Amino acid sequence: MPQLRKNPITREWVIIATERGKRPKDFPTSTRVEPPAHSPTCPFCSGNEGLTPPEVLAFRDAGTAPNTPGWWVRVVPNKYPALAIEGALNKAPRGMYDSMNGVGAHEVIIETPQHGHSIANLSVKGVEDVLWACRSRYLDLKQDPRLKYVLIFRNHGAVAGASLEHPHSQLIATPMVPKTVMEELEGAERYEQYHDRCIYCDMVREELESGDRMVTENADFLAFEPFASQYPFETWIMPKEHSGSFANVTDQQQRSFAAILKETMLRIQLCLSDPPYNYMLHTAPCAQDDDHRFHWHLEIAPRLAITAGFEMGTGIYINVTPPELAAECLREVTVPTEESVEAEPTCA
Amino acid sequence: MPQLRKNPITREWVIIATERGKRPKDFPTSTRVEPPAHSPTCPFCSGNEGLTPPEVLAFRDAGTAPNTPGWWVRVVPNKYPALAIEGALNKAPRGMYDSMNGVGAHEVIIETPQHGHSIANLSVKGVEDVLWACRSRYLDLKQDPRLKYVLIFRNHGAVAGASLEHPHSQLIATPMVPKTVMEELEGAERYEQYHDRCIYCDMVREELESGDRMVTENADFLAFEPFASQYPFETWIMPKEHSGSFANVTDQQQRSFAAILKETMLRIQLCLSDPPYNYMLHTAPCAQDDDHRFHWHLEIAPRLAITAGFEMGTGIYINVTPPELAAECLREVTVPTEESVEAEPTCA
Repeated sequence: MPQLRKNPITREWVIIATERGKRPKDFPTSTRVEPPAHSPTCPFCSGNEGLTPPEVLAFRDAGTAPNTPGWWVRVVPNKYPALAIEGALNKAPRGMYDSMNGVGAHEVIIETPQHGHSIANLSVKGVEDVLWACRSRYLDLKQDPRLKYVLIFRNHGAVAGASLEHPHSQLIATPMVPKTVMEELEGAERYEQYHDRCIYCDMVREELESGDRMVTENADFLAFEPFASQYPFETWIMPKEHSGSFANVTDQQQRSFAAILKETMLRIQLCLSDPPYNYMLHTAPCAQDDDHRFHWHLEIAPRLAITAGFEMGTGIYINVTPPELAAECLREVTVPTEESVEAEPTCA
Repeated sequence: MPQLRKNPITREWVIIATERGKRPKDFPTSTRVEPPAHSPTCPFCSGNEGLTPPEVLAFRDAGTAPNTPGWWVRVVPNKYPALAIEGALNKAPRGMYDSMNGVGAHEVIIETPQHGHSIANLSVKGVEDVLWACRSRYLDLKQDPRLKYVLIFRNHGAVAGASLEHPHSQLIATPMVPKTVMEELEGAERYEQYHDRCIYCDMVREELESGDRMVTENADFLAFEPFASQYPFETWIMPKEHSGSFANVTDQQQRSFAAILKETMLRIQLCLSDPPYNYMLHTAPCAQDDDHRFHWHLEIAPRLAITAGFEMGTGIYINVTPPELAAECLREVTVPTEESVEAEPTCA
């Protein structure tokens, strides 16, 4: 009999196919071909800096000029932005409806000059620098009073919406707090009103104690499959210590976050033959990143299943891999030990 | 400058790319190959009735036996059901989480014995019979006190989640009112409290008056592109007269609904080269289908764009075709005049 499970934050139900749970080998093998180390036409490759808008941030070798080679992380405005940085909101009615100008920011975090790399095979230090670049852009955009939320996310593979294969993350800053974020905040608040505890802190405790859905952990973070996973092999990375916003991450935490992110992405890549995926950083709205009403985390969604009419009409997802099975498969992956956080140099 | 538009029911924002709106020719051409008229291995083809579970309803020629040829619409339980019809809910905690047994119903409405047909090239009478079969199954499942909602939906094309190409719709009955439905009901209620009017009735008035987003209409229904369309060429079909539930459709309305559904699907098929799509019937929960707090309608979502990290992390969709442009393209399609409702025989 399938099982219905409820997401305690959003109150969304999911259907977990418990009886014929799909293992990694039951999903179609990725058709992604190994990318070349360098692509002469790729706008994100070193040497092609002129193909992007001018950089807004770069970590680069001393003495190298902006928009030339010598960088290892580079942030540029998206050439085809979903939202435009110039202009006023001009909120206005249109008949019975409401509209405003699409003001915001849309930037690309180019994670490495190497076309053929991935977040899973960068060094931990390389991943950490990507995360510092994201945080730096967040802090800068937060100064703009028109912007209320900054989403940092990553699309990997064409099926997951990546139009360029060169490793990159994106951020989009919006002039309102998005509905998905509002619902999470409201869910956390509802739980706190009832229990006087943070729901995410309770999840951390529950998952560490039960262990059934644990993928990996280090001193500061855990990676686990959520009880009501909407997607097969959905994985959340969460700080063990309560903290509302990624903006307030410490040096030590960022190092740990980079280490667990790299390890988790490597486990997913090896377990599922480099599947397409999206990941999204869930953090507090700009105006609330100094209070403690939220608990930031990263949600990773491999794109192994198709969202169809039932999901669209109900919001109820059908997940063919129970999270306990997914966790077991991900735990079984052997990852090279030199990838551990201890083996890495300290943050520059 | 892109435009942000708000869905007045769910309060979700969408980003409409107003400047470089994509026209039908800008989307990749469908790779779907014309299906054969009959497939010897298809479980939904006439003659293969033994490949499905026994039928729960069929419209068939007098004198023909159940589970043999002679039918023109046939409803069977899904062989791989998402929810199981037997058993009790057994709501139970699992640590800090909530779960229950996956009790429900999952049925397939086989729309025609002809493998190569589609909802767009059935006769209006054929479409009408499909709709009567859906309603009949709804009324039957509604008797089961464990079932709170019945979603009728259709997946067309592999990209939209259809695993079999033979024309079919599905219904899934759930033991709770899904979150998506709850939110729509709450949104309609919120609007009614403020305006003392049905929001959907206001939309009918607004769209008919402005005309900018109209696709087509007949005596009882209109088809239009919603102001805050999440998907390129998203189309809603809505009864002009206020009615909470599809369960209460009259003979005249069903005829009109079939006619506009067929015409709209034909316009979409011709305009966008038979794109993959999902459609979902939005109707009141079983317990509320006799009151008037909702306004049932059908939502059609062509699958021309990929939902990626930004949409998943915010709930804000980026729509590359303004609904006014989509409506114009769909209006321009020439559909054969014999398809009009007047040309059809009256309902049997």
